[in-house]
Amino acid sequence: MSNSNIHITYKVHSSDDIESRAEALMLEQAVELPRKAITDPWTQENILGEILSIEDTHDGDHHVTIAHPWRTSANDAAQLLNVIFGNSSLQPDVLVEHISLPEEGLEMLGGPQLGISGIREKLSVQSRALTCTALKPMGLTPDKMAELCRTFALGGIDIIKDDHGLADHEFCPFKERVEKCFEAAQKASEETGKKVIYSPNLLGTPSAVLEQFEFCRSLGVDMVMLEPMLTGMPLMHEIVQKADGIAILAHPAFAGALRMSQVAQLGQLFRWYGADGVIYPHFGGRFAYSEEACRDLSEELRKPYPGLPPAFPVPAGGIKTSRVKEILNFYGPNTMLLIGGSLLEAGDQLLDRTREFVDQVAKVSAE
Amino acid sequence: MSNSNIHITYKVHSSDDIESRAEALMLEQAVELPRKAITDPWTQENILGEILSIEDTHDGDHHVTIAHPWRTSANDAAQLLNVIFGNSSLQPDVLVEHISLPEEGLEMLGGPQLGISGIREKLSVQSRALTCTALKPMGLTPDKMAELCRTFALGGIDIIKDDHGLADHEFCPFKERVEKCFEAAQKASEETGKKVIYSPNLLGTPSAVLEQFEFCRSLGVDMVMLEPMLTGMPLMHEIVQKADGIAILAHPAFAGALRMSQVAQLGQLFRWYGADGVIYPHFGGRFAYSEEACRDLSEELRKPYPGLPPAFPVPAGGIKTSRVKEILNFYGPNTMLLIGGSLLEAGDQLLDRTREFVDQVAKVSAE
Repeated sequence: MSNSNIHITYKVHSSDDIESRAEALMLEQAVELPRKAITDPWTQENILGEILSIEDTHDGDHHVTIAHPWRTSANDAAQLLNVIFGNSSLQPDVLVEHISLPEEGLEMLGGPQLGISGIREKLSVQSRALTCTALKPMGLTPDKMAELCRTFALGGIDIIKDDHGLADHEFCPFKERVEKCFEAAQKASEETGKKVIYSPNLLGTPSAVLEQFEFCRSLGVDMVMLEPMLTGMPLMHEIVQKADGIAILAHPAFAGALRMSQVAQLGQLFRWYGADGVIYPHFGGRFAYSEEACRDLSEELRKPYPGLPPAFPVPAGGIKTSRVKEILNFYGPNTMLLIGGSLLEAGDQLLDRTREFVDQVAKVSAE
Repeated sequence: MSNSNIHITYKVHSSDDIESRAEALMLEQAVELPRKAITDPWTQENILGEILSIEDTHDGDHHVTIAHPWRTSANDAAQLLNVIFGNSSLQPDVLVEHISLPEEGLEMLGGPQLGISGIREKLSVQSRALTCTALKPMGLTPDKMAELCRTFALGGIDIIKDDHGLADHEFCPFKERVEKCFEAAQKASEETGKKVIYSPNLLGTPSAVLEQFEFCRSLGVDMVMLEPMLTGMPLMHEIVQKADGIAILAHPAFAGALRMSQVAQLGQLFRWYGADGVIYPHFGGRFAYSEEACRDLSEELRKPYPGLPPAFPVPAGGIKTSRVKEILNFYGPNTMLLIGGSLLEAGDQLLDRTREFVDQVAKVSAE
């Protein structure tokens, strides 16, 4: 076997003999046949994977690390997911813990185009943590969304994103919403002298999303948001190839419960497939990610890989403004902090609440 | 609220007060804000969902049924998934059990174009169960794949599909493979006088898949296979709109462990999004679907809905030829039985083993 392999570490919870279980897992992910049914010599030598290690976790599980030749992926962003977790995802005793790609894998995927430094450059914010908020609820007209966008921009937010549920609604059509919000952000930016990024949500069939993307490009939008688990990771990969300076924010909608560790799914795959920032639920909010998962995920997103810019961790999910200091101490300044509901609850005091959030982030980052 | 609602039944395993948990779940899936932060009257009246019922399952869980106005879906195949299980999929105490769509929902999605009767018509097989097998392992050249395809076709199989891991590999390029296998199937069909369908696997970024689809159309292919969870359910929806008589077979790769019941995910969504047949692991094989899940799923796929043709259940996953009778007794004749590995294990005896499989299905169906 060549050195050019994908390594995948699975956590296996099996009462079967672990060697046989590991062998079955390896076969399932590429040839999908018992070993004795592989009679073709080229396939035996060039396609069949290998079990690299089996480690007892001492809590009844095993870590099984399997190598598959990179060529099984067909150098293709969709087929790679098949090799990692196509059929085995249907087996409840298996969890993807960690993936490691050979150099040509990272090169094929390419990862974020801008990453942390590219987004910082767009905003001219060199060292402090970034602030992010969301336009919602669904149901507002484009004019009301634009007004909300203006308030957030005047309040000093760095990145104002659409809620992930904002689609091409009859009561709030995509183009009208995006045009008005983008204009509102630009105008507020001229007034305050502070750069702000408005990030529209792209959602629909792939052809609709690609059209929405071109529309955003024609307006001069700096960043778009995608839900890779809902519209497909291969679509995100395709868009990144055409992005040409437009940053990608990845939202985890529909991602839940795919039996992968958060590190593998959001930390590794989302970044490798091109996200410049990855939104995820911070622990202690209304989602059940653990403190350890959040730490590991954020570290993975910023971990050095050859040729791959680091991406922003974007903790979110019911974060109260009172937690800014605690959270930035946890993550450090290369973080984009996303607070939505906790600002919008302020009602008439929205501008003030927004300014407080922005000031707190600046203050904590300067400490 | 109008009568035009999406109803979703979630199984909730929560130690919190169930009324509050249900309210939070309802808010999460559309407005994603606390109720007090929804100040816009139009949104309150036209977007906010409603809790229809909360039922104690008497095993520590609750069934919570929530109605969301259809308009929250933006009449969009991607946004609908957000409404059903966008953010809540990240919450480990929630499982989607069942979905019911209003008439305009089924009309927008459209479901299978051909369904059971359309596929039967293509094959001129009116009442017996259908036979299906897979071309594998990955690693064979296009010529060897075509030879395998020919053997299966001579053996009398109805549908010969690519393995889901067959992508556009350097050692087995998509176009060459599809051309040769299609031709081999056609030629064998002329010799035997029995119609056979070869179903290529479409895999890649959305634009690549759409190109592959057009290539298949130009050849005259009758059926293609997709992995909707890997390349996106919205892509399947887009392809079905253009299908024009080409049937769609849906493969469950990467589907696992998305916290939805098999009935909701594979039985309802896959069919509604356009699959004419849905492959899934039959119980007792190497995947852990239960007998009950398999029965419910197969019934759901064939259940009458206004304007929606029934789709074939395609049980698979390590089925031995010796189980044909048992399985067809379980599912009845409106079934496409997929056996791959158990045929390929026959080595030199492949043609004979294939014929046995085909004969058994005909015999059991005639009983």
